[in-house]
Parts: sequence; C-alpha cells; structure tokens
Amino acid sequence: MNKQKTAITPTREEDYPEWYQQVIKAADMAENSPVRGCMIIKPWGYGIWEHIQSDLDERIKNLGHENVYFPLFIPLSYLEKEAQHVEGFAKECAVVTHHRLEEVDGKLVPTGELEEPLVVRPTSEMIIGEAFSRWVESWRELPLLINQWANVVRWEMRTRIFLRTTEFLWQEGHTAHATEDEAVQETLCMLEMYRSHMEEVLALPVIIGNKPESEKFPGAVDTYTTEVMMQDRKALQSGTSHYLGQNFAKAQNIRFTNRDGDLEYAYTTSWGVTTRLIGGMIMCHSDDDGLRIPPRVAPKQVVILPVVPKPEHEAEVMEYADRIAAKLRNETYSGNKVRVIVDKREKRGGEKNWEWIKKGIPIRIEVGPKDIESQSVMVCCRHRGHKDKKKVQIGDIEKTVINLLGEIQKSYFDQAKKHQLEHLRTDITNFEEFKKFFTPRNSERPEIHGGFVRAKWCGEPESEEIIDGLKVTIRCLPLDQTGTEGKCVLTGKPATLDAIFAKSY
Amino acid sequence: MNKQKTAITPTREEDYPEWYQQVIKAADMAENSPVRGCMIIKPWGYGIWEHIQSDLDERIKNLGHENVYFPLFIPLSYLEKEAQHVEGFAKECAVVTHHRLEEVDGKLVPTGELEEPLVVRPTSEMIIGEAFSRWVESWRELPLLINQWANVVRWEMRTRIFLRTTEFLWQEGHTAHATEDEAVQETLCMLEMYRSHMEEVLALPVIIGNKPESEKFPGAVDTYTTEVMMQDRKALQSGTSHYLGQNFAKAQNIRFTNRDGDLEYAYTTSWGVTTRLIGGMIMCHSDDDGLRIPPRVAPKQVVILPVVPKPEHEAEVMEYADRIAAKLRNETYSGNKVRVIVDKREKRGGEKNWEWIKKGIPIRIEVGPKDIESQSVMVCCRHRGHKDKKKVQIGDIEKTVINLLGEIQKSYFDQAKKHQLEHLRTDITNFEEFKKFFTPRNSERPEIHGGFVRAKWCGEPESEEIIDGLKVTIRCLPLDQTGTEGKCVLTGKPATLDAIFAKSY
Repeated sequence: MNKQKTAITPTREEDYPEWYQQVIKAADMAENSPVRGCMIIKPWGYGIWEHIQSDLDERIKNLGHENVYFPLFIPLSYLEKEAQHVEGFAKECAVVTHHRLEEVDGKLVPTGELEEPLVVRPTSEMIIGEAFSRWVESWRELPLLINQWANVVRWEMRTRIFLRTTEFLWQEGHTAHATEDEAVQETLCMLEMYRSHMEEVLALPVIIGNKPESEKFPGAVDTYTTEVMMQDRKALQSGTSHYLGQNFAKAQNIRFTNRDGDLEYAYTTSWGVTTRLIGGMIMCHSDDDGLRIPPRVAPKQVVILPVVPKPEHEAEVMEYADRIAAKLRNETYSGNKVRVIVDKREKRGGEKNWEWIKKGIPIRIEVGPKDIESQSVMVCCRHRGHKDKKKVQIGDIEKTVINLLGEIQKSYFDQAKKHQLEHLRTDITNFEEFKKFFTPRNSERPEIHGGFVRAKWCGEPESEEIIDGLKVTIRCLPLDQTGTEGKCVLTGKPATLDAIFAKSY
Repeated sequence: MNKQKTAITPTREEDYPEWYQQVIKAADMAENSPVRGCMIIKPWGYGIWEHIQSDLDERIKNLGHENVYFPLFIPLSYLEKEAQHVEGFAKECAVVTHHRLEEVDGKLVPTGELEEPLVVRPTSEMIIGEAFSRWVESWRELPLLINQWANVVRWEMRTRIFLRTTEFLWQEGHTAHATEDEAVQETLCMLEMYRSHMEEVLALPVIIGNKPESEKFPGAVDTYTTEVMMQDRKALQSGTSHYLGQNFAKAQNIRFTNRDGDLEYAYTTSWGVTTRLIGGMIMCHSDDDGLRIPPRVAPKQVVILPVVPKPEHEAEVMEYADRIAAKLRNETYSGNKVRVIVDKREKRGGEKNWEWIKKGIPIRIEVGPKDIESQSVMVCCRHRGHKDKKKVQIGDIEKTVINLLGEIQKSYFDQAKKHQLEHLRTDITNFEEFKKFFTPRNSERPEIHGGFVRAKWCGEPESEEIIDGLKVTIRCLPLDQTGTEGKCVLTGKPATLDAIFAKSY
C-alpha cells in the first residue's frame, strides 16, 4: 500500500491520543511542566487563549456582567458549608498548610503552620458566596452579575495537556437573583452565549442540554452543558452553566428583603469555560499535518514567506513582503485588524513552510522575484492541500485574504458538523444494537467505536450502571426534546426523554 | 474655625492612612477578604486594572515580547538553586503540602502528603528559568522575550489593600540574551516603558534610577525602580526592572552556543508591575471628596445624570440622556471609544451625584427638562469644585468632553508634578539639616515630615545604617546623575553619586 507521508507521526488513524500530543508539540503550543500535571502554555498556545478570552469577555460584558477578582485561597471552614460541594472537590485539592520555609540541615522545610489550612480554589462558589451574603440586602441590589478570569487547581490523578490539568485557566461567572425564573433564564442565556462563541469563533458544532443527576456539578440543581464530538467520535464537555437554586444561598446565608418586605434566600448561578477549549479545538479541527486553527482565534492569520533564490534578490523581496503585510494589516476581518507576520528567519523555505503548516496558520503567502515581476503572490490555505497554490494579483490580495479567512472559518465548522452528523445515530432503539455500536470492532483498538447515540431514556439513575462497562455515559438530555413516547434504549421501559449517549474525555 | 464638610472622613490632613482606606470604601473599589491579607477587587477597582493591563500589554507586545503562562506552583528544590533568591523569599511563601481533604470526626483534615512540597509562586524566575534552560540551545534562539499576567503570593506580615497584599496580580517579564550589553539595554528599555506608562496613563510623575545594594531584588546584579511621591510625601516603589547578569543562568544552567561555537551562559532580565499601581494612583490623585481617576484608566469616563422633577418628564429626559450618551460613545479619546454610563437608578439626584464624585468619575453631565428646552447640558468635572457647573450647547458636547478628558488627565499629572517638585529638596548638604527635614515637627503626627531629598552619597552600605532610625531609605540613584563632586550628606565623606532619600511605603 502506498502510504502518504504526513508531518505528524503517528496519524489520527494510527494512534489518536498520541497524535494529539504530537500536534501540540509540532505546533509549539504548550508542554508539560516539571510540576506534576501543570502545563506551560507557550506563545502560540497562549495567543489562541487570548483571542478566546477577548471574544468571551466582550460577550459576557455585553450581557451586563462586570469583572472582579477574588482570592486564590479558600479557608477550609468555607468549603465545609455545602455538603455535596465539599464531597465533590475534597478529593482533589491542593492544601496550603505553612507560610514559610526554613533551612534545617541544609534542606528547606516548611514551617509556620497555619491555624486553618487554606485550599487553593478548585472553583470559587464558596468564597464569592461569602461576599454576596454581605453585599446583598434588598431586591434593589439584585441581580448581582459578576465574572472573573482566574487560575484554578484540581488535583486530577490522570492529566492530559489542555484537556485535564492540575492547574488550568478559566472564566467563572457567578450571579444572584431575586427569583427562580430569572436565575434559570440567566443559566440558559449563558449556555446559549457559550454555544454561539464555540460555533462562531472556535468553529465547534455543539450539542446543548442538561446533565443527568449523576453528572451534575456538586451542589447544583441543574447543570447545562455544551458537548462537542471529537474526530475520534468521543464527546468533550466544553462548557457548563449551573442553576444552583437556593442551595448555595442557604449554605452561605445569601438573603435579601423582597418587594413585600420579607426576607428570602437568593437564587444563584455559576458558569465557566476553561483552557480545555483549546484542547477541543485541536482535537476537532487538526489533521495529520498538524494543527488547524480557525482564523478568528489564530494568533497570526497570515504568514508571508519571502523566497530569496539569490542574495541579490533579498532587499527587493523583503521590501515587497513588507509592503503586502502593510496592505493586509490595514484590513479588518471579523471586527479586528488582520494579523500578519513576515517570516524573515534565515532558514530553508521548505522548512519554514512546513513549520507554518504544522502551526496551523490559516493562510501562507509566498513572494519571490518572479512574483514581483508579475506583481502577484502565491497563496496557500491550510484547509486545502499543501500543494494547492493559487496565484493572486497584488490588487486583489486584500479582498482575497478576507474572503479566504471567512471561507476557512466556515469550512472547519462545516467539516466538523458533517462529521458529527455522520456519527450521530438516531435509529438505535434497543440495548443489543446500542452495545454493538459502542463495542470496538477491534479489541486492539479500543478507541475506535461508533460515536454518539440519540435515543430514548427512562431517566432512572440505576439504568446508567448498565452502560458503565461500555465506558459510555449520558452526555446530556438535549434541549430540543421531542417529547414523543418510546422505549428506553437501556431498559426497554416506557420513556419520553431524549438523551445523548457517548464515550467521553 | 469654619471647617468645610468633606465627603471622606477623616481628611488627608487628619489621618492620611485612614483616609486612604475610606476613599477605597467610598468608591466601592475593593475590600479586605476574610482570607488573611488577600483582597477582593470589585468592579470599579478591577475596571481600572483592566485599563492598566490593556495599555501595558500593548506596549510590551510592541517591544517584541510574547505572552505565556507558567505554573502557579514551584517545587521546593527549584527555589534552592539560587541562594540569595531563596533567602529573599523563603520567609514569606505559601507552601502546599497535601493534595486532598478527608473527613475525620466530622472535620476536614489535609491528607495525601506530597513527596516534595510546592511553593505558591512569589515570582517566577525559577520555574521560567528551568524552561529557558531547555529552550535555548544556540544564539539563534536568543533573545527570548516573554511576559505573563498572573497572581503571586507573598506572605507579608503587615498588609494594606492594593499596596501590600498576600496575593496580588501582576505582569512579570522574563528575557534571556546573548550579551551583557543587550540584556542591560532590555532592562533599561522596560524601565523607560514603565515610566512612560505611569506618566502618560496613570498621570504619576516618576523618578527613575537604580537601587543601592541593600534594596536590590534577591539575586539581581542591578535593580532599577520607578519611585513616585505620594501626597503624604512618602515614596512608593511602583515598578522594578532587574538586570540579573548570569546569576540565574548559572543557577539554572541556561547556556547557549555562541557564534564562535563556544558554550556560554545567557544574560537574563526580569521586570514587573502589580496591582500596587492602583494604590499609588489613589494616594497620588485623590482628595477629601474621594477618588479621582485619570481619564485614561477610568472604567467609565462620563456619567449622565437624568434630572426628573416630575414623573411626566421621565420619558423625555431619559430619551435625551440616551441620545447624548450615544453621541459621546461614538467619539474616541486616546485611541478608545469614550466610556459613558447613564445612571437611571431610582435614587435622589444629590445622592447619585455624590456617589459619582466619590467614585472619581472624570465628567458628570446633568440633563433635565430645562436643558432640553435650551438644547444644552450641565457639565461638571472632577478636577474642579463640585459646584462648578458649565452649560454646554448640545452641538458642542462631543468636542467639549474630548477636550475636558485631556484637560483632566493633564491637570492630575501637573498637580502631582508640582507637589513632587515642592517637596523635593536639593539644597540639603549636611546630616543636621537632613535629620531636621525628616523629623516630624509634631510627635503626635509622625507621618508629617519633609519629603524627598536629592543629595550626594558616598555609596558605602554602612552609611545607610545612620538613617535607619529616621525610617528613611535610599529610594534610588537617579539615572540623571550629575557626576559632580561633593560631600556625602550622611557621612561628610567625598561623594560623586546623587541619591534620592525618602520615607516609603
């Protein structure tokens, strides 16, 4: 068999998890640090995060929220206030017990033991709730709508870069409302905000719904989720929005005087997305030649590669490259100036070209003496083959690039959506078929399986135990419930709920 | 005596440290959290930080640096590598020793002891240096120019909101270079970047210079500083830029092959500013009526206050207010759209007006039925008296506001500069006068003293002991050294160095 050479080894087909690690390495996005489970996010990875942040930050502010900053540390006694919450997080948190170091026998040892240990925040409900209880007095102060960009720590046993790390970056929104109705609306509004960000900006097709009891956030009444199908057909939970009811308000005494003068507990919500989004973006869009970044979050959208066959061409080619860069930097794509880099490094052209392919830059433009002569450039796009070059006249370059950025953004979404639809089965009605769909055809390749199943579910928690062995979970009860009656795909009992079943990260 | 009533009690004159706390409270900027020494930054305070960030971030990137993110935790063994560095930070760091909590007799206790304790970063030289040692191989990879926005923790014994907190937010730049000369240039270039940011954006007049040996960053060859005089004439160190020589490169093995093929240690730098800048801005510009924010960092620059004498006016006045807001939001001041809020809350007009005065918003615009009639508005500015209202025709409103924002920004700088020059003595030549200048005239008011002294210093570390009792330190050796010969103001010995002496935060 004539196997085509790819820039990334192994390919997705050969070993998807290892391919993922190699894509990150080849694009120079991030690396594992010597600190267990923590990552170092390098400029090419952090640049993507900055564009995710700036888009989300604008959406969050436009919906009336204000940014704040709360302490990194949570006193142990705070965590104890909400029983389910502490149970959910106690097993995986970093605990600060001392506040200085001293040299003993030439070795540094912790001293200055704290009276009350501090937990490095795994999430901030408990520390923010304490402030809410002091800030809220009457219905006039409600709703309270805040957000923070922060680092959090969860001591995960198995970590994977971007997808599950001990420390990660995120935004966490926290709100308090006077009525249940308003708080539920907020929860759903932020879910929709995430959906549109993920689809429009990260080009990730999303299924939204609420989690079954077993997968809810510790202490929440309802957890809503955005689920994305990766190329290996597993689901990635990419964002969550929680309706907390009065659970946290009661645990933390967040009370207000309502319009009738009565004292009442507030209704709270919280919602967040993390650097995991970058992992989802990589796994959903990249190919066997490396990373592919949707233009809207690409740190650079266009690289100009000067081709200098002989030293005497250099000055002229560089000047031409800079001129084209300047023209493009004046243009606007999706509300921001086009981000252009001219790669003048002293390296072989082929080597530079492949570096940028692996980095997933949307557009590469080659300019050399022949192009100057014909007043044109050669344009290559990351969503087409790497040999697919197109000659563009210099007068058309701005328009061409803007159109191509839009085309690439759309093509990544379309391709991911097509993949999702191809592997989302809606015709599986009994457990026999269900089991067959999720059982790997090849025992040596357990990662290859069916995909997503949308089917009826009876809603009984015990029924979920049946699919434990298949490593399948209910990802969500999608918001677009049909309400039709049918039989539970797991138990055969009468069922009206629609559920999405899948393996997941 | 006829004492004028002020919005803040006590006044600056009465009790400067307490006035500072009350300004922050009255402006609703931040508060002390229940976590020892950590603060909660509220929207009005965090909004200022966001504008500081966005200006600095642009300057840092324009100078060729890229943003990254490194882990929060530093393994203990890393800290031990640079002796001076660990000595400087060991006494004040939060140490993580456990990674889970377990319930014992109904109480949560830390379990899962770590093999190697982790220190919550007080600064990131040691964790970033480890990466540099892996990333740098030859001169081709140099210079390495990176920056990160992060939280850091230093277990300070005495904390004061914004000025000295256990956890604070900052940016830390870290660079590695092939030559000493280039690294020194970088150190000075970033110092100059800080100076221009502080003067142009925060309206803080800055004295720049390098620190004497006693005040250097632990492990640095040279520490450069920006010093700002507060209204109580004490100095605030508002930013630092360190030339680290090869000290950290040797401790962390950051080596590269130079152009001659020889292995050499790199030359490194680091530089940072923190949320302390907000404290400096408050202490430098605010008055006895509360906060005054330079327009370039104000979360909102203009508030429109609708005046509704009778309910039947409401619709018309609100519409007029919104129309003026829309006009102003289309305008640009200093590269950004003008930030306008219309305060429609149901509150008495006088109460709202004073809230905004205390919050330090640069411009307040009142609109009522009479203003609609005459197609005008009433404009009040924070840099003038609160009764100083000016009628402006609606056709002139955009131009007036843009001009006023510039005028206010300039007036805050000019006022602070004038204050600095008034209290910076350059004519003190002996220790008798020096002592008198720094000794409080009134023993009950130790905070009232002379200000800054610029005088000759012999450069001998022991001479600094003489001024210890006066609580005076050498703030810096200003960059604009005159080089003239004279006598040391402390010892009377021959001296050519010029030094700035002051009490400080």
